[in-house]
Amino acid sequence: MVSDVSRRQQIESTASALFRERGYAATSVRDIARALDIQGASLYAHVASKEDVLWSIVSRAADRFDAAVTPIARDRTLPASVRLARMITAHIGVIADDLGNASSFLQEWRFLSADRRAQVAARRDGYEAMFRGILEEGIAAGELDPLMDARLDARALLSALNGVAGWYRPTGALTPAQIADRFTSLSLDGLRRRPGLSYPAPDEGGRTLR
Amino acid sequence: MVSDVSRRQQIESTASALFRERGYAATSVRDIARALDIQGASLYAHVASKEDVLWSIVSRAADRFDAAVTPIARDRTLPASVRLARMITAHIGVIADDLGNASSFLQEWRFLSADRRAQVAARRDGYEAMFRGILEEGIAAGELDPLMDARLDARALLSALNGVAGWYRPTGALTPAQIADRFTSLSLDGLRRRPGLSYPAPDEGGRTLR
Repeated sequence: MVSDVSRRQQIESTASALFRERGYAATSVRDIARALDIQGASLYAHVASKEDVLWSIVSRAADRFDAAVTPIARDRTLPASVRLARMITAHIGVIADDLGNASSFLQEWRFLSADRRAQVAARRDGYEAMFRGILEEGIAAGELDPLMDARLDARALLSALNGVAGWYRPTGALTPAQIADRFTSLSLDGLRRRPGLSYPAPDEGGRTLR
Repeated sequence: MVSDVSRRQQIESTASALFRERGYAATSVRDIARALDIQGASLYAHVASKEDVLWSIVSRAADRFDAAVTPIARDRTLPASVRLARMITAHIGVIADDLGNASSFLQEWRFLSADRRAQVAARRDGYEAMFRGILEEGIAAGELDPLMDARLDARALLSALNGVAGWYRPTGALTPAQIADRFTSLSLDGLRRRPGLSYPAPDEGGRTLR
């Protein structure tokens, strides 16, 4: 017999896959039950409502992002640019590790009730503030560009990182680590060819990564 | 008496504001009619269904982005980095000019029927390919970093730009032109302080833009 905890995990995993595929609003409790091959009534023994399932998924996703990124942000023994690179890697790792969970969080959280939505918005603000804080520390330390707009840039970076949940495929050409490396280079050094740097010729590995 | 064309525009404008606020799935035709202060039955004289309204909104948004950005992308008399800067400005301009229309397009297009969704996906792919193409032209011309991943980087840039629709406020501290300038610097030159560049002291205007 399946324990309550693992049954609950199955429900969340199945529900988040359906939410990712067709959206929260278009998924019914009956759809979730059918995908689990159980009766709707049995599902209600485990969850109070569809919104309750979404709330669990969203809370768990927020916990996963926080647990992966916060310890890196707080480690002041490392330069800000190194922490930023590791935060980018950790963030993309959380998305790639459970794409359904992360996508449901990023796309569907606005279907939560007003009170829960406000709680999620506050957590998202705090998470964004961690990225902004690293940029500000990097400016103060002379590592990062003092002409940046740390608030705008942290938002831009997080929007780009969260976009990965929309296009990442486990069978794709790039591993999560390769994607993170490229995001780090793009964020820190930009797209412009830098004068004075020597680049390998195309046949020495200077091709674009695909 | 209101013409059919302007009535239709009113309907789309009201509907897109509601879609942006509460989502397509949670908005009924009755809600749209109520916001317009007309009867649901009168609304159906102008639109066949709620999805029909969404389709008009989404098609118009895709047209607006194409019309603003395509002529810039095609103007081969300009260096790729200059075209990229202008494409960024144009894209943000389209978002800021009609936030409801752009947000409904970016957030709600997946609620369209499968056939219409496929048409939108193809247009979005073509639009992304224009940004990728500029990056590839910039690499070929020796302007842009040959070690970039043009596909990933174009996606990252568009995700970040589209994120503007989520946080831009007409009453905010930054104008669309200032936001576009910052996105351009961030994309081309990144966050790292560049050795050899002199930066103004904070009291000479070196503050972050806020």
